[in-house]
This record gives sequence, structure tokens and C-alpha cells, in this order.
Amino acid sequence: MRITEMHVTPIAVGDPPLLNAAGLHAPYALRTIIELVTDTGITGLGEVPGSADTTAALKAAAEIIIGHDPFQLNAIQQALFNRFGAGREKRGEAPWDRRRLVHVFSAIEVACFDIMGKATGRPVCDLLGGRVRDRVDFSAYLFYKVEGAGGELGFGVDPRATGWAAARQRAALDPAGIVAQAQAMCREFGFKSLKLKGGVFPPDQEVAAIHALREAFGPNTPLRLDPNAIWTVDTAIAAGRQMEGVLEYYEDPVRGQEAMAAVRKAVRLPMATNMCTTSFEDLPGSVRLGSEDIILSDHHFWGGLRASVELARICRTFGRGLSMHSNSHIGISLAAMTHLAAAVPNLTYACDTHYPWQSEEVIVGGRLTFEDGALAAPTGPGLGIELDRAALATLHQNYLRCGLSRRDDEIEMQKVQPGWRFQATRW
Amino acid sequence: MRITEMHVTPIAVGDPPLLNAAGLHAPYALRTIIELVTDTGITGLGEVPGSADTTAALKAAAEIIIGHDPFQLNAIQQALFNRFGAGREKRGEAPWDRRRLVHVFSAIEVACFDIMGKATGRPVCDLLGGRVRDRVDFSAYLFYKVEGAGGELGFGVDPRATGWAAARQRAALDPAGIVAQAQAMCREFGFKSLKLKGGVFPPDQEVAAIHALREAFGPNTPLRLDPNAIWTVDTAIAAGRQMEGVLEYYEDPVRGQEAMAAVRKAVRLPMATNMCTTSFEDLPGSVRLGSEDIILSDHHFWGGLRASVELARICRTFGRGLSMHSNSHIGISLAAMTHLAAAVPNLTYACDTHYPWQSEEVIVGGRLTFEDGALAAPTGPGLGIELDRAALATLHQNYLRCGLSRRDDEIEMQKVQPGWRFQATRW
Repeated sequence: MRITEMHVTPIAVGDPPLLNAAGLHAPYALRTIIELVTDTGITGLGEVPGSADTTAALKAAAEIIIGHDPFQLNAIQQALFNRFGAGREKRGEAPWDRRRLVHVFSAIEVACFDIMGKATGRPVCDLLGGRVRDRVDFSAYLFYKVEGAGGELGFGVDPRATGWAAARQRAALDPAGIVAQAQAMCREFGFKSLKLKGGVFPPDQEVAAIHALREAFGPNTPLRLDPNAIWTVDTAIAAGRQMEGVLEYYEDPVRGQEAMAAVRKAVRLPMATNMCTTSFEDLPGSVRLGSEDIILSDHHFWGGLRASVELARICRTFGRGLSMHSNSHIGISLAAMTHLAAAVPNLTYACDTHYPWQSEEVIVGGRLTFEDGALAAPTGPGLGIELDRAALATLHQNYLRCGLSRRDDEIEMQKVQPGWRFQATRW
Repeated sequence: MRITEMHVTPIAVGDPPLLNAAGLHAPYALRTIIELVTDTGITGLGEVPGSADTTAALKAAAEIIIGHDPFQLNAIQQALFNRFGAGREKRGEAPWDRRRLVHVFSAIEVACFDIMGKATGRPVCDLLGGRVRDRVDFSAYLFYKVEGAGGELGFGVDPRATGWAAARQRAALDPAGIVAQAQAMCREFGFKSLKLKGGVFPPDQEVAAIHALREAFGPNTPLRLDPNAIWTVDTAIAAGRQMEGVLEYYEDPVRGQEAMAAVRKAVRLPMATNMCTTSFEDLPGSVRLGSEDIILSDHHFWGGLRASVELARICRTFGRGLSMHSNSHIGISLAAMTHLAAAVPNLTYACDTHYPWQSEEVIVGGRLTFEDGALAAPTGPGLGIELDRAALATLHQNYLRCGLSRRDDEIEMQKVQPGWRFQATRW
């Protein structure tokens, strides 16, 4: 079996104006969809965070990929590294940094797993060791936001919307707004864990939001706060102490492994990261410093599904818990995340997902459906999804029309707060 | 697809009287062969170091295994741990220690991979990430030995034997004997790396043997020495310094991670282990102490092929090289070792194998053939081997007749040196 075609399609998906430490989400989130086609007529799908650079890198990778057997993942990875590897003087024609190489391989690897699953009649999770759970829990990913629906509506709202579709258009700028958002999201999707994206308002206000959530949802609903590393160590310690016994985990309050380790020593809360330990190269430092208790995996950035299973083994071996990170995404990524989570014994935390914030889809049958905050572990061959080509074409038109070429939350923020600047450490 | 039968067959394979730190090999090496049969008529094979205890444990595991889908390795492992797990009070009916559980799972996992490969028409290495090399190099595993052929002949010799079959009957008790053994073995198999099992004679004699090998084979033939941890730190440092620039790696001269780390600091030689870091539980200590440079994997003891791939990732991540350990074995283990080595990018050392010391086989077509010291990475479905039932029956009769129920090199040694006792630290 050989890969004979590789199609790379940048798309833009409507995304509401969500606030975070880096600024504000643009009305569209960029994703790149890849399709690998084999000489046996099988198509494999992948989805990654999009940008003009990522799309260009994937297109450049295509000529390396074509002709390969999709089972030969090691050979595909080696071929990519040989051609584009950074730090190999004169060897790579277009040297990329190592993280981009890993990112590009991640996209391709998922599509190869989709093909392998379809070729063998097996769900992808069965090729990763098999299911350890029948349902994969996700968490409600709460955001401070300004009013607006995103997409073509930008900061406008669709007055005909009802239920969650209406709720997600509303502003949420204080504890009451966050609680209302959480209640609407949980009503719609049934999530049992809550994660608040912080780093937006002064720490006391965000701590107050966590306490408001605790008040509203009670002690049996796990809560997480993620200030995206813009707090000082002192601020993080002071805020953290106010949330001891309240947070399930405290995610990246500060930047870097040393700072995380300092907060971890001072605060009786499990610390989690997807910012200070984000690659295999970071793990020796993590072990040496003790920078976190829980690592948030993300197959888009760690090198694919198999690498994520290997990360899970490292977490088990070195006493780290495992959770899962998410960017804005649609169903191909969600399916891949679900297969991975279904197959990893120690992925015991509800996974993050931005999925409720998007309303479009590129898969046949439309949006995947959560039940009680969970997705059923897929049982069909491959990822278990099919591409809706008309939907893909629509979202590609979105991409061409929206004019965005990379995510820049700072520029978007400046549209609502002129002169606003990102600060790596704000409070 | 479901597993409907599991057959567990203890066998005894003729083994010459090889000397090592623990004593002397008995005339037979014990192995246990497992066969899993599915409702689709596929048979998967596994082979592990044998003993009455291992055979009993595998037979007890059979009732857990039957009914499982061989792709569901996580579920199979969990079921075994739930039933037999140690440290779970009253939960397991027959609590085993953790190492035995891992060992039993390792045996079953390989047979499941054989089935998965056959069911999908893919060699096992393709299910582990795919081939990274077309040929897998093995090393010449040299032993001090007394005269004798092993098997029915015991310490007797077959005067009709020629070539390597004659050479392997000869005693090798000094540097000249080891050099002659190495030359005969390399002539027969084409090995390009030499490993001497030490821990038998006073250290100076073994250092002399290494220098004699260097003299005879030149500086381009990698040399290894493995005293099986019976030297003191001082002895190991003194001996190691005499082999700086000569050994490719220095394997387990001393016992335990602390002692290994002390030797490693004092001697400019890469240090290797299959004694102080032998399970995932040992890895945090290895990283903390810096006990070795190279870990010898062994899928029979680390939890199977997938776990070994995960170990390889840990080695890459934490700056360890990777090689492969061997016990006395026949072709099922050799095939599994070759698939694993073919699929692991950083397994850059020639693998150990005892295979040249055995002459029997249970696979159709007989003994696997080395070319230039290597085996071709298999390309057929599964492990790529079939069981020769008549040969299996013969070796099972060997087992019943020989009366051995577990390996005990001390007792065998006492037959040639009355009163000999194993000492954990001898020199």
C-alpha cells in the first residue's frame, strides 16, 4: 500500500471573541486539513492548527510523503527529518525548526493511522493498544469573552439563536458571567469538569470566579484554572493558596519549569502544564526540577498518537498525571483525541476541548455529540469519520475570504482595546 | 476476533555447559512456548524463559485470556493485573509479584502481535512503527565454558561434529580459548561485535581476555564485557581503567544503581545494564543517579514489544543508548527480537543472542540463518514463522525427561566444583 496523493486544505472556522492572556480570538480559527489517499483507494484524514506557514510546510512535505507505505511511520518521520531537519547544515533544503517538524509529522501520522485502521478494519484506538474505556470524558472549557458570535457575525450576535447557541454569544466578564456560561455549557453538553481560561483579569477576580463556580457547582465538580503563565511566582503562590482544596489542578500560572517548580513547592495544589513541558526534550528538566504533577498531552504537538502513548508511559514512569490540551478545532481532531484518550490507561482527567465554541464541521453527519460530557469511544474502522467535501469547500472559502494567515490574538485585542500589548508576565 | 485456545508447552533445549557468575548452565535450557488460537483460525506464538512456575502462571492466565480480542492488549493486561495483581489485597486469587505479571503479559503480548500481524497481513515490525533497518545486527556472545555439548551429551562431545558445532563443544577457560571461540563463532555467523560473559575468573584474567580479543580482532570490532555485577566498585574501577578505549561498553560490573553510578563517574567507558535498571519502576532511580549510559532492553521482561518501544522513547528522552539482552532461546524469541530491533530507531547496538549456543528449533524450516552477523528484517505477516509440531513435541519430551523445573546454575556448578557457592560480590 502506497500513498499516492496528499491534499492540504487550509480552512477557517467561526470562533467567538474569547479572551485569553495573549489577547482575543479572531472571528475565525484557522485549521489545516490533510487528506492522504492510497493506491488502494483509502483516504486518511488529519487536522492541525492552521497558518500559512503550516500549510506551506505540509505542502512541502507532500512530495516526501507520496510513495510511502502509511504503516512505515518511522521511515516517514525519518524522511521528513532528513529533508527538512533543522541543525543539519546544508542537509535540509528548507530547514525548519524541530517543533515544526514534529507538528507536521503529527498531522501526517494521524492520517496514516486513519488509513491503517481502515485497511485493517480496526478503530485507531485498537492500533494503540486497545480501548481502556468506553467513553471519554471532556471538560467544559470556560472563557472570559466579549459579546459576539464569531464567524461572519464577528462581534455581532444572531438574535434567532437559542439554548447554548445563544449563550455562547453572550459576554462573560465577571464571576457571574462565567457561572452563567458554565451552566449553559453543562446543560447542553453534560460536562462534569470545568476549566477556566484565566490570565485575562487581575488574579483576584479570577480567583473569585473559581470560588463562584465552586459555590454554584458544589465540591464534586472538578475545577481548573489556567492563567497561561502570565502571573509572577509571588502572585501565583498567593492566588494558589486561596484555591487550595478547591482546584482539581492549577495549570501554568507561571512561565517556565523553574517558576512552576517554585509555585508547586509553595502551594498544596496539583500543578499542570501545557506550556513548560511541551516536548520530549523538556522532560529531563521536568524530572530534575519537579515542575508539574500533570502533563497535558496534545497529539498535534507531541508528534502524533503513538508519541502521545509514549508520553503516557513516561508520565506513568516518572509520577506524572496525564490530561489533554486543546486548541480551537473541529471533528477530525476531536475524533483523533477521542481515540487516543480511549487507549491511554492513565489519561484519567477529563480532556480539554474547544469544540463547543465552534459550530461548523467538515465531517459527514455534522457535529459529534457529547452525552453526559463524554464521547463514546469509536468502534468503526480508522478514525470513524468521513470528509464532507462540500463543507470542506465552504470552510476553505471562509479561509480565503477572512484574510487571516496566522493566529494573532494581540492584533484582535487591539481592535477592542487600542494600544493593548501582550505581556509575558502581567501580574 | 476472539482468542479461543491457549496452549502452554514447557520445553528443554540442549545448552552447553557455559560458565557465568551464577555458576554453570545445565545441559538443557528451559523455555515455555505459548500458542494462542483465534476463532478465525489464526495462531500466534510466544516464547519465554521457562520454569515450572512460569508454566503454571501462564496456564493460570489462560482462562483470563480466552475470550479476549488480541488487539485489546490494554484490556488483556488489565484483566491479568486485576486477577493476579500483587498488592491488591484479597482482590487477586493468586497474587503474583509484579515482575511475574509483567513477564506473563510479555509472553502473551508477543503472541497477540503475531496474530495481529497475520490478521492484517503485516509483519509485526510494521505494527510497531515500521522498519528502520533492513538487517538487524547481533553480537557474538562469548562464554567461558567447560568441555561439553550439552543436551543428551551433557559434558560429553560428539566426535563427528565439524565447524562451529565442534568448536562450541570445546572448553574455553583462558584468553586463548576465548579468542578461538570468537573466531569460530564469527567464521560461522559473521558477527561484527563481541561480548564476553565475565564474572567467572579473577578480573585480571578477564581483562586479559578482552585485550586478547582486541589483539586478535583489531580496533574496529566492538567489544563488551559483562561480569554480572559480582565485582566491587574498586575492582570494577581498576579493571575498567585497563579497558578504557577498548570496550564499546562495560556491562554491569557492579550491583545496583548507586554502585554503577560510582563506577561510571570514575571510568571513561560507556556503562550498560540489564541488571540495575530492568523495569520502568527502576527508571526514576536511573535518571536521578546516572547509573548507566545504555540500557539493554528485553521484551520478555519489560512487558512486551510495545513496552520496549516505549522504553526506547524513554532512552531517547533521557539520554540513554539502547541495546538488547538475551537469555538462551530459540527461534520464536529470536523472531520477536528481530522485529523489535527492526522497528526501534535508537537501537543502534548489535543485539545480544545466545542462539548460536542452541542447535534445536521448533519452527518450520529449522534454524534461522545469520548473514554477516545479521538477520534480515522479516517482511511476512506476523512474526513470520510457523510452529513445527513434531519438533515441539520432541523438545517437550526433553523437558519431561530432563527433570529440570527451574534454572539453577549453582547446583550445576557444584557438579563440577563440589562446594561451589554463588557470591553476589566475589572480587
